[in-house]
Amino acid sequence: MRQTFDDHADPSFGSKHLPLIREELRKQGLDGFLIPHEDEHQNEYLPDANERLSWATGFTGSAGAAVVMADKAAVFVDGRYTLQVKAQVDAALFEARDLVEGGVPLYIETEAKAGAVIGYDPRLHSPDALGWLKIAADKAGATLKPVEGNPVDAAWASARPAQPQAPIAPHPLAFSGEDSADKRARIGEDVARAGADAAVLTAPSSIAWLFNVRGGDVIRSPLPLGQAILNKDGTAELFIDPVKVTADLPAFLGNQVTLARPDDLPKALSALKGKRVLVDPAQSSAWYFDALTNAGAEVVRGADPCALPRACKNAVEIEGARRAHVRDGAALTRFLHWLATEAQTSLPDEVEVVSKLEAFREATGALKDLSFDTIAGAGPNGAIVHYRPTLKTNRRVEPGQLLLVDSGGQYLDGTTDVTRTVAIGKPSEEMRERFTLVLKGHIALARVRFPAGTTGSALDALARAPLWAEGLDYDHGTGHGVGSYLGVHEGPQRIAKAANTTALRPGMILSNEPGYYKTGEYGIRIENLQVVTEPSPIAEGERPMLGFETLTLAPIDRALIVSERLSLEERAWLDAYHARVLAEIGPQLEGDAAAWLEGACAPI
Amino acid sequence: MRQTFDDHADPSFGSKHLPLIREELRKQGLDGFLIPHEDEHQNEYLPDANERLSWATGFTGSAGAAVVMADKAAVFVDGRYTLQVKAQVDAALFEARDLVEGGVPLYIETEAKAGAVIGYDPRLHSPDALGWLKIAADKAGATLKPVEGNPVDAAWASARPAQPQAPIAPHPLAFSGEDSADKRARIGEDVARAGADAAVLTAPSSIAWLFNVRGGDVIRSPLPLGQAILNKDGTAELFIDPVKVTADLPAFLGNQVTLARPDDLPKALSALKGKRVLVDPAQSSAWYFDALTNAGAEVVRGADPCALPRACKNAVEIEGARRAHVRDGAALTRFLHWLATEAQTSLPDEVEVVSKLEAFREATGALKDLSFDTIAGAGPNGAIVHYRPTLKTNRRVEPGQLLLVDSGGQYLDGTTDVTRTVAIGKPSEEMRERFTLVLKGHIALARVRFPAGTTGSALDALARAPLWAEGLDYDHGTGHGVGSYLGVHEGPQRIAKAANTTALRPGMILSNEPGYYKTGEYGIRIENLQVVTEPSPIAEGERPMLGFETLTLAPIDRALIVSERLSLEERAWLDAYHARVLAEIGPQLEGDAAAWLEGACAPI
Repeated sequence: MRQTFDDHADPSFGSKHLPLIREELRKQGLDGFLIPHEDEHQNEYLPDANERLSWATGFTGSAGAAVVMADKAAVFVDGRYTLQVKAQVDAALFEARDLVEGGVPLYIETEAKAGAVIGYDPRLHSPDALGWLKIAADKAGATLKPVEGNPVDAAWASARPAQPQAPIAPHPLAFSGEDSADKRARIGEDVARAGADAAVLTAPSSIAWLFNVRGGDVIRSPLPLGQAILNKDGTAELFIDPVKVTADLPAFLGNQVTLARPDDLPKALSALKGKRVLVDPAQSSAWYFDALTNAGAEVVRGADPCALPRACKNAVEIEGARRAHVRDGAALTRFLHWLATEAQTSLPDEVEVVSKLEAFREATGALKDLSFDTIAGAGPNGAIVHYRPTLKTNRRVEPGQLLLVDSGGQYLDGTTDVTRTVAIGKPSEEMRERFTLVLKGHIALARVRFPAGTTGSALDALARAPLWAEGLDYDHGTGHGVGSYLGVHEGPQRIAKAANTTALRPGMILSNEPGYYKTGEYGIRIENLQVVTEPSPIAEGERPMLGFETLTLAPIDRALIVSERLSLEERAWLDAYHARVLAEIGPQLEGDAAAWLEGACAPI
Repeated sequence: MRQTFDDHADPSFGSKHLPLIREELRKQGLDGFLIPHEDEHQNEYLPDANERLSWATGFTGSAGAAVVMADKAAVFVDGRYTLQVKAQVDAALFEARDLVEGGVPLYIETEAKAGAVIGYDPRLHSPDALGWLKIAADKAGATLKPVEGNPVDAAWASARPAQPQAPIAPHPLAFSGEDSADKRARIGEDVARAGADAAVLTAPSSIAWLFNVRGGDVIRSPLPLGQAILNKDGTAELFIDPVKVTADLPAFLGNQVTLARPDDLPKALSALKGKRVLVDPAQSSAWYFDALTNAGAEVVRGADPCALPRACKNAVEIEGARRAHVRDGAALTRFLHWLATEAQTSLPDEVEVVSKLEAFREATGALKDLSFDTIAGAGPNGAIVHYRPTLKTNRRVEPGQLLLVDSGGQYLDGTTDVTRTVAIGKPSEEMRERFTLVLKGHIALARVRFPAGTTGSALDALARAPLWAEGLDYDHGTGHGVGSYLGVHEGPQRIAKAANTTALRPGMILSNEPGYYKTGEYGIRIENLQVVTEPSPIAEGERPMLGFETLTLAPIDRALIVSERLSLEERAWLDAYHARVLAEIGPQLEGDAAAWLEGACAPI
């Protein structure tokens, strides 16, 4: 079993760990210290060794920060986590504050004493965020001081888990579709076009993509933690712990890639003196900017040159994604069959639901990992958008409730992410009405054709308009990018209310996941992955239009659809989708499941 | 007759005026000079005296630039004007270049000789645009030099029209709905909140709105050219030519507003020494930034503090807009009746169409001006998006053609802008199909409900999706803001593909004008103005939603609608709209027109 259901931290962490941290601050002559959630890789998921915020406070959310002063401390979370922070953090020790409204800068500005010296670890802060913090400290008459040794790490010391040392292995051409040398040559040209001689790459997903390697340093995604310097001629230095280097890796990388130790990185940055070096301020911490500037290099601020090419999957990656989705769809469909039959009478709890689904995925024999911890939300738990079942929150589904299951798998040929919402027993009319509104939005975003240059922000309202018309909405994005056996959340494209200037391009894989959440009662989400298709002509039309090909294959619960509320076009889409699910998944199933799928895919 | 049909410039302008300009350059010791389209008020429409680009080159488009060097010259236009520039500008004298791709900076970088001194008038360039020009000049080893006296003005000299001196009159509270003192007090507070002691206002529409005055310096909009300094306590200095001050203006402005002459402005800016002064770099030229910096003031760059408040109309302005639209709608409906009857047999040309419509508007007795030159495009001329009929281009409509008429009026109580496309004789099936697609997009944007925080960029795709689905699109925005007896194009809100971060707010008036253009054949556009409504609850819903109230009242040509292609909801919207047109416009019509309207507004 890959997923666990324990709480990784508890409210006693504060009283246990805060004195240790304060003792380290005294030793270093600091009056305070900033503890962001982000680690030195500015990655979505952290290795256990870098869960500093959680160790210091008990808070385990995916975004946040803390400030520890000698006589007070505060923890900062956004709107998603206001309830969670109360349950996880000792309020006697940490004042809970809003991460977005005012955030850490306002706290520094109003709470730091004049003359106070507040430390920060420059490896953990983006240069832009640090700018705001410095302005705030100035206003308070305080000083921000970079530290060499992180006092949290010193306090944690022997109890701290080791840094991960998962082996880094070649990712074969059969899955990547493009040789690393070719990638490095063309990205090198992009670096030159950006006016730079070299680029510093610190995003683990960029390292993985550029060198066609995969690791396992971070849970739920096959990422190798490391850094690289890519020169404009396509040669590169790759900084990874030698213990992670597998036997065939050096030959696979070839002689244009020099393997080096992470300890060699400062020296290598110094050697860039006089060069123009591209660094992404959204991806690389202030430490890199300082190191390069101090070395006498000229920093060129710009987007990670791997980000956009990585997002646009090539033909081999798209074909892999299709295969992965047929395999994953068969596992998910077996699970949905179980839910629709056995589980309707022998009602499972969320942990059992997660375990059952994981077992079906495991049985494919191809599962490398889950792509994230499965969200199984029964009844009211389904309405908590960022829910993950634990032994404490675990609920058994009851008749008349909805079960929301958001899950995905990591396979060598692709990463999946799918949400289905299923009725247990007889759903209410309101549930069906609202499920149908969500489905209308999902279909609008699945069917849309659009011209080159269109961004995800421009399409977001198509998925929301049916809900908006009824006075409803959902408080999350509609679609995120997805990697190819990489992170399940991948930029730079996104379908969301927030402005995003990245145009959708052929080969980008995105989720389409509108939802509706009724607090205390139920949650609905319908999520498929879809890949942006090449611009193609439309009969009688004038301009070729891009569109989406749906990758995810699993039935959508017909019991929750009010078919009269669908337009002819919407019904046609749904029937065609279900026909495709039956044609592609049906042959992989056996007996009862195969028979059940026929009914589940019948025209509406 | 207000509208004229002459060409205001011709290709001989270059050969006549370029030698005069070069002579002035020699006198001033300049090797070149930059001539932007923008004038010192950075306004959409220019007074004749400021049409420097047109005088120098012959080009009359609404955006562009020229560079004149001793031995060569170039004119820069965007994609809309590539045909027009060929017709209007002598290619032997001016190389035509793309305004957007490379533009003036690239020309300077590649064409300026090392050591060359290129002049510019700092009153005509935004500080940001100037930054790019300076970088380009640096690369060429050339220098950009601000001039005190504009050499184009010197060359133009006696032939140049006088600066406009239209009287500036109070705009009564019955139309503005808010006293200037109240406006100044609250905008003053906004200025303080932006961290400034005062704001320099240079947008004529901001002057007009803030002081509740209207002028006539610029054709088609009642704008007073002038500047103002607004202090954070709500007091102000208003700089306008004394000859424009009407008798009752000083008393109307009251003793918190000091009237001053434009010549006094530099001294007044100098008096801001030591103060923090808000200036909008998108609205005020580099001259203001330089003057303030040289005076020892601290410039705070930020949006014109009047822009957003001006865009959000108050209850009195909205009520005025409704009245203006009933009046204007009656005039337009009389015109549409004429088009549907008399003009179907006695076919008019475009100039006659424009004249007829102007006469109907004039007959209301309330018309202050057109809100822009009427676009009447018969057949293929309808496909030219920025078309304005002239005696040279004038076409007679033919049976089987479409006539596109985009027009509007300026009334004391509101500004209108409406487009109707009408079939002359029997339209083709393709015309009807495509008109119906445009109508579907229009209806989607008329009916949409949306939550607070939604931008126009987020809604744009709703109007395009029906066209996109058929491989069609239009190359202009979907909606622009509209002033209240002010400019017919007004920011900061906009509905367009381009990202715009201004959320739509109650009281904003926007156009809804999707279209389709078949080059060489016909153009289709359906445009109504609509005002953003207050957030209001929806039955069974959870969140109050904003929406639109359609202001424009005139029938949409039923002969062009394929009713089977409309959904039930779309038909319901159209029928309800037509019922409203009949109820509100019908009683104002007489005889034949009234009877005709009943048919034109019958359910589809």
